[in-house]
Amino acid sequence: MPDINLKPIPNLPKYDLPKLVIAGAGFAGLKLARELRNQPFQVILLDKNNFHQFQPLFYQVATAGLEPSAISFPLRKIFHDSKNVTFRMAEVTRLDAEKKRIFTDMGYIDYNYLVLAMGADTNYFGSETIEHFASPMKTVSEALFIRNKIISNYERAVNIERMEDRKSLMNVVIVGGGPTGVELAGAMAELRNNVFPKDYPELSFKNMKVVLIEAGPALLGTMSKESQEHALTYLKSLGVEVMVDTKVKDYNGKVVSLEGGAVLETDTLLWAAGIKPNKIAGFTEEMYAPNGRIFVDEFSEVPGMKDVFVLGDSSLMKEDRFPKGHPQVAQTALQQAENLAGNLIRVQKGKPKKPFRYKDLGSMATVGRKLAVVDLPFLKFQGFFAWLTWLLVHLMAILGVKNKLIIFLDWSWNYLRFDPSLRLLIKPRLMKVIEQNEPKHEKSID
Amino acid sequence: MPDINLKPIPNLPKYDLPKLVIAGAGFAGLKLARELRNQPFQVILLDKNNFHQFQPLFYQVATAGLEPSAISFPLRKIFHDSKNVTFRMAEVTRLDAEKKRIFTDMGYIDYNYLVLAMGADTNYFGSETIEHFASPMKTVSEALFIRNKIISNYERAVNIERMEDRKSLMNVVIVGGGPTGVELAGAMAELRNNVFPKDYPELSFKNMKVVLIEAGPALLGTMSKESQEHALTYLKSLGVEVMVDTKVKDYNGKVVSLEGGAVLETDTLLWAAGIKPNKIAGFTEEMYAPNGRIFVDEFSEVPGMKDVFVLGDSSLMKEDRFPKGHPQVAQTALQQAENLAGNLIRVQKGKPKKPFRYKDLGSMATVGRKLAVVDLPFLKFQGFFAWLTWLLVHLMAILGVKNKLIIFLDWSWNYLRFDPSLRLLIKPRLMKVIEQNEPKHEKSID
Repeated sequence: MPDINLKPIPNLPKYDLPKLVIAGAGFAGLKLARELRNQPFQVILLDKNNFHQFQPLFYQVATAGLEPSAISFPLRKIFHDSKNVTFRMAEVTRLDAEKKRIFTDMGYIDYNYLVLAMGADTNYFGSETIEHFASPMKTVSEALFIRNKIISNYERAVNIERMEDRKSLMNVVIVGGGPTGVELAGAMAELRNNVFPKDYPELSFKNMKVVLIEAGPALLGTMSKESQEHALTYLKSLGVEVMVDTKVKDYNGKVVSLEGGAVLETDTLLWAAGIKPNKIAGFTEEMYAPNGRIFVDEFSEVPGMKDVFVLGDSSLMKEDRFPKGHPQVAQTALQQAENLAGNLIRVQKGKPKKPFRYKDLGSMATVGRKLAVVDLPFLKFQGFFAWLTWLLVHLMAILGVKNKLIIFLDWSWNYLRFDPSLRLLIKPRLMKVIEQNEPKHEKSID
Repeated sequence: MPDINLKPIPNLPKYDLPKLVIAGAGFAGLKLARELRNQPFQVILLDKNNFHQFQPLFYQVATAGLEPSAISFPLRKIFHDSKNVTFRMAEVTRLDAEKKRIFTDMGYIDYNYLVLAMGADTNYFGSETIEHFASPMKTVSEALFIRNKIISNYERAVNIERMEDRKSLMNVVIVGGGPTGVELAGAMAELRNNVFPKDYPELSFKNMKVVLIEAGPALLGTMSKESQEHALTYLKSLGVEVMVDTKVKDYNGKVVSLEGGAVLETDTLLWAAGIKPNKIAGFTEEMYAPNGRIFVDEFSEVPGMKDVFVLGDSSLMKEDRFPKGHPQVAQTALQQAENLAGNLIRVQKGKPKKPFRYKDLGSMATVGRKLAVVDLPFLKFQGFFAWLTWLLVHLMAILGVKNKLIIFLDWSWNYLRFDPSLRLLIKPRLMKVIEQNEPKHEKSID
């Protein structure tokens, strides 16, 4: 097979503008591209998917509350009216910072500016068996996979005669007590309490466990004491078994082994315990922090390279108040993208750059129907009003009027009927066929 | 592996009622189960999926107008309040009519009445290469696969330098001039005319062909002359190349060979040319018509068996006006199910059965925005009003208030904005993992 990396990506429009390549269309990359619409840059946005994914609501896809399409946005559509932005579905593989050339699986691009905003993937902390058997939730496909897996486990459990034999199919164990783990645990417990008993009248759901495991001393480690305690109370009221100060040692697809020797039987281990930045070749060892984040200066630029910027989860910028870097959350990504867009435009105009300053807008997590916790900089509150706040903030953050409408309709329906209706086990006809065909098309490129 | 067929399906509720097993939850099976809710039968509904699929709108899933969930309905939810109906996700494999026992991949069931309503699958008329390379559309997964395939072809085409090399990725060829083929061709042409040029400004869409091939002398063979002619005019106005009296000889994944020697280059051959009934073991040769339909009497019962009924696409009932059997459409399935439900109840009450009489309610097909053709028994009309009629009839036929709302919202949006927003290439994380696990669980049954 010819080395596709030796050819430039074809058919890009030719503009007499500085060429800015953005790798990754998550919160940071998409924000930056949007800020640079109709600005004097030729923006080339790359992502391995043709859509942006709204991560904060993955857990609702996993628990049959929302469709993947409700929280996914076709990137091409977002830039229909922005002639200076071109999207390409491509995966970035390697950087040659000397030549100012970025390589992808579709060919290379020579850039004037490069912005890497490639986010992070699931961190299994070195355990290959956990990586093999656990279910991560860092993409909308993975969230859908969790939904399908759980429904498929129940459809199988109902055909198993002895209760002992179907226990592991019914239990759900979630690892990681951050917002994702808390939200997943709450939503799973609500399915167990309200939906599954109606769907599977033959099964007894007293025996279905929803377990949330956290290695640290408290859930929602980065939030306030009040929020942590309320979240714990809410989860317990929903019947979630919460285990803090507990580490998972191994998992073989059937049994979770905890440090200390205890075991939990489950076919479904949902892994929300940590993230690690996505990497590409072309950086030296000392450019990375031990946790895999790339050091950047206060303008998001990589020291030792020229015109290479890193944003969001995969970057590590030190600020007085954040000696270990900013939190790896959407807010950081969005604010860094906004700062960089401003600086790029300022530099074009011969103005001085502004260093990044993180503005903490607070954080929140929802546990279940009418149950959420909100920490704002000067106000903390919990319960029904926090839940309404959570709904409103997420609805507003979602792109597009139609998606807002669809989600509002889904949420209202689920609230009134307590019956998320997406319990469909739609088995994908495998894209394998396309994958098998791919070499054919790659051949036609050379 | 133990022969799972040697065990009965476990955990079924025990009622002192005649046990009626329905295999297949398409139009016929679902209708029958719904008619028998809270009637003196223990109904066990089986389907290989856990949802009912609304086939008439598959083409909108394929062309990014609707989500699979909008036209799919979780079967368990439909029967939440019907204690006498139990659903099991299972695939029927074999019938032992002597023992009154039906075998599935989850075990067997001993029935008092058996109703087979297993529909039909795509008919490739014996061509293995066409079966291998063409894309059928008989399930919602297959429809979604078509959508993904087309989007993925375009994402690849844009990275191919020479126009000659990307032609086959851009062309779409549809075989079969029935309503499905006509609707697919119209919707594909609308994507080509209105959506793709905005999504892929780098590509020229003058070169994208949408071709519709029909072996017979006219499109919509079962409809009126007026409708046939209008449909043809509408398709041509949208830029579809229509070829009638044309037979496809072969397809190798790249090139369609037509009888007579002409060829068409395409990566995307959509096959809507014919259906063949789904079969299970346990019937003798003479019980089948040459086209694979099972002969039934005017009460949908199989002659030579006791208490075995076949409904819908896979049955062949002769009526004076229909010496070759009724048309294989939703109306036949629904009306036969209603007739059988009535007869089963009448027999329980000691009343005489009523023979089936097909009532033709007319037929319709939509070609595109504001373009449809409608044949009612005493009235034929075409154009905008036909299109509104088509929308209304399909919206009413869809199950569930929420699905109606979602579809209404989607259709209104697409009508106003001309921009179906579901162009998401969400690659499934393969269910393979689950399939690999399956033997494990089957073991736990024995």
